Amino acid sequence: MSTVIEQAQEAREAARRLAPLGRREKDAALVAIARRLREATPEIGAANADDVERARTHGLSAAMIDRLEMGPRVVEATARAVEHIVTLPDPVGGRQQMQRMANGLLVGRQRVPLGVIAIVYESRPNVTVDAASLCLKAGNAVLLRGGKEAAATNARLGEVIRAALRETDLPEGAVQIVPAGDREGTRELLGLTDLVDLAIPRGGEGLIRFVAENARVPVIKHYKGVCHLFLDAGCDPEMAVRLALNAKVQRPGVCNALECLLVDEAAAAAVLPRVARALLDAGVELRGCERTRAVVPAARAATDEDWGAEFLSLVLAVRVVDGIDGALHHVARYGSNHTEAICTNDHAHAERWLREVDASAVMVNASTRFNDGGEFGLGAEIGISTSKLHAYGPMGLESLTTEKWIVLGDGQVRE
Amino acid sequence: MSTVIEQAQEAREAARRLAPLGRREKDAALVAIARRLREATPEIGAANADDVERARTHGLSAAMIDRLEMGPRVVEATARAVEHIVTLPDPVGGRQQMQRMANGLLVGRQRVPLGVIAIVYESRPNVTVDAASLCLKAGNAVLLRGGKEAAATNARLGEVIRAALRETDLPEGAVQIVPAGDREGTRELLGLTDLVDLAIPRGGEGLIRFVAENARVPVIKHYKGVCHLFLDAGCDPEMAVRLALNAKVQRPGVCNALECLLVDEAAAAAVLPRVARALLDAGVELRGCERTRAVVPAARAATDEDWGAEFLSLVLAVRVVDGIDGALHHVARYGSNHTEAICTNDHAHAERWLREVDASAVMVNASTRFNDGGEFGLGAEIGISTSKLHAYGPMGLESLTTEKWIVLGDGQVRE
Repeated sequence: MSTVIEQAQEAREAARRLAPLGRREKDAALVAIARRLREATPEIGAANADDVERARTHGLSAAMIDRLEMGPRVVEATARAVEHIVTLPDPVGGRQQMQRMANGLLVGRQRVPLGVIAIVYESRPNVTVDAASLCLKAGNAVLLRGGKEAAATNARLGEVIRAALRETDLPEGAVQIVPAGDREGTRELLGLTDLVDLAIPRGGEGLIRFVAENARVPVIKHYKGVCHLFLDAGCDPEMAVRLALNAKVQRPGVCNALECLLVDEAAAAAVLPRVARALLDAGVELRGCERTRAVVPAARAATDEDWGAEFLSLVLAVRVVDGIDGALHHVARYGSNHTEAICTNDHAHAERWLREVDASAVMVNASTRFNDGGEFGLGAEIGISTSKLHAYGPMGLESLTTEKWIVLGDGQVRE
Repeated sequence: MSTVIEQAQEAREAARRLAPLGRREKDAALVAIARRLREATPEIGAANADDVERARTHGLSAAMIDRLEMGPRVVEATARAVEHIVTLPDPVGGRQQMQRMANGLLVGRQRVPLGVIAIVYESRPNVTVDAASLCLKAGNAVLLRGGKEAAATNARLGEVIRAALRETDLPEGAVQIVPAGDREGTRELLGLTDLVDLAIPRGGEGLIRFVAENARVPVIKHYKGVCHLFLDAGCDPEMAVRLALNAKVQRPGVCNALECLLVDEAAAAAVLPRVARALLDAGVELRGCERTRAVVPAARAATDEDWGAEFLSLVLAVRVVDGIDGALHHVARYGSNHTEAICTNDHAHAERWLREVDASAVMVNASTRFNDGGEFGLGAEIGISTSKLHAYGPMGLESLTTEKWIVLGDGQVRE
């Protein structure tokens, strides 16, 4: 039997023991994880130095190496993130919607952990601790398959976490570091339909497509964020400038950053030059349609590839459309179900946008950058989903659980 | 381009048009479907006669042919089921948990259709109408891939439904009959990750495994129902008899029927003979462990294959276990996450059962036969899920929807 199957079986057994635990036991383990992380700062740093050294030898990019580094500051931030999870309420065990049926049965739902979760990710080793802590708090066992570039760091982090589990009498099998580097092993992991309840990939689009295409277990994912902002006729030009600038420039490399600005033809002459000026001044390269370039000569000509593109940099596609229908049509065709915003002062248009746009977060007069677990009050986030299952949008602790039905009777039988 | 991709694209476009519709439009279409079904009773019967004739020629079993038949009575029952769906509230469009954040943003969730749902099923052609109606009511487009044995009936039903959609100005593409009979086509359908949001297989375990193993899109399913009833020490013997008899005998061929009776050793001598007598009198074949046969000599010796078996007939495995721990252990090992019941008068044991058993429905002092959408107040059911995603247990209209996030601001940007 392969190692990964054995690990998954151990995780399954651990999940069974974790599921009924109360908050106290789970929080005690998290507190121990945070303490042991701090204590192990030198060892983690040493393991990480090996990973970084190897990454340099293999010629990884500076950005990749930056994400890989786990010095004392990152360890401290990671420990604090674990302590923050301690402060969050336990998502498991509550009973909802208990209702009495005609036959006297009391029927309702009880929130339960999903069971065994596989996380497949790249680079950042702090994900190892974040994901393990969130899964534990929600009562799940977790199989962590990180990138091979972080193998030494992840192995060390796994030892720290498992020592904390031992110390607090939780099943060690609840957190499993799956050996990295071997795509066949990942494929095997993703095929264990009887042992793994959910896979969550985190990383670049290549990794996510690999997981989606090779998984037999359910996958919750988002490929990319092609977010739009539509400037409606009659919108406040100052608000339009503020929203476009924040969404595009504040952090252009993330999935909720703006990639395409849509402008109602009726607003183009009045609003677009001001918005474009602010963006150009902030160093943004604009790629516009013909109608855009008629009012913003500094914009380069957009090509068909620019619609639906995820630039993740200071590049923005700009298109003049025919009213809200044109905007809705463009978003339906080129959006990625991630985040779509309208800037408007028209109530009916705001309501149409909220109703008709199919995206994990639909916004009126707010920056796309707000699509985030922290900003939505989830406390912590394990990822963003554009899969339309129980989680659509930022996934917090509750997204790592489901509800089973419970039935309380006094001997009822079915007629 | 293949037919199935074209159908899925049409469905995707129709889904976009269905999503914002209100209840009135959707219910009008359902009313028209019910009326047209009744009007088309002779044509449906003629098409069905062809299917039945072909099934006889191919030597299908009497049970299969029984499920295939769609005469006037089945058409009438199907039309009534559609009219019942008309009476159910619209699951889509409501806003929940809208809360105001510190920065003034109003953040919450809005219930939305999943989008495009693929149903893969066998035999019973009324599923074509049931599934289409439930999907429509929840604002989804649906790809219906029925069995080739019902091809003529399903084609005719598809025409009836699409005529009703045309009549009520709903997009015809919302209901697509996918040509049956070709496994390659089904595999293609299940691979359309950009066009299909969810696949629901309904049928035998072979069909369900085929779907689970070949799908790239998310699948919600249950393989089988291996349901247990645990008779706790100190339970009411009369209640034990009633629950065991109802769960096993009332309808043995369904997934929520009882397959294995567990008895605490401390209750075996007092309770098991009475329960066994009632089951034997009802014609049930008992297959017991050694401790069972010590008090129920009429039981045959169980083999290892009897634990975890789904008999779907008047056969019952019976095992004496060591207290509730033994019962929980057996259920964790052999259960199918479907329905698990305890008969007890011990409060702590009832609570442990509810907390520790991982199944879509966990019951105290009630027959396993109650795991059913109608009995749970869902109004209608599209299937039972043992996948732990947003739906775990009977799936009603709400299981065909999810929630997106909505954000109402007045120009907020992220700092």
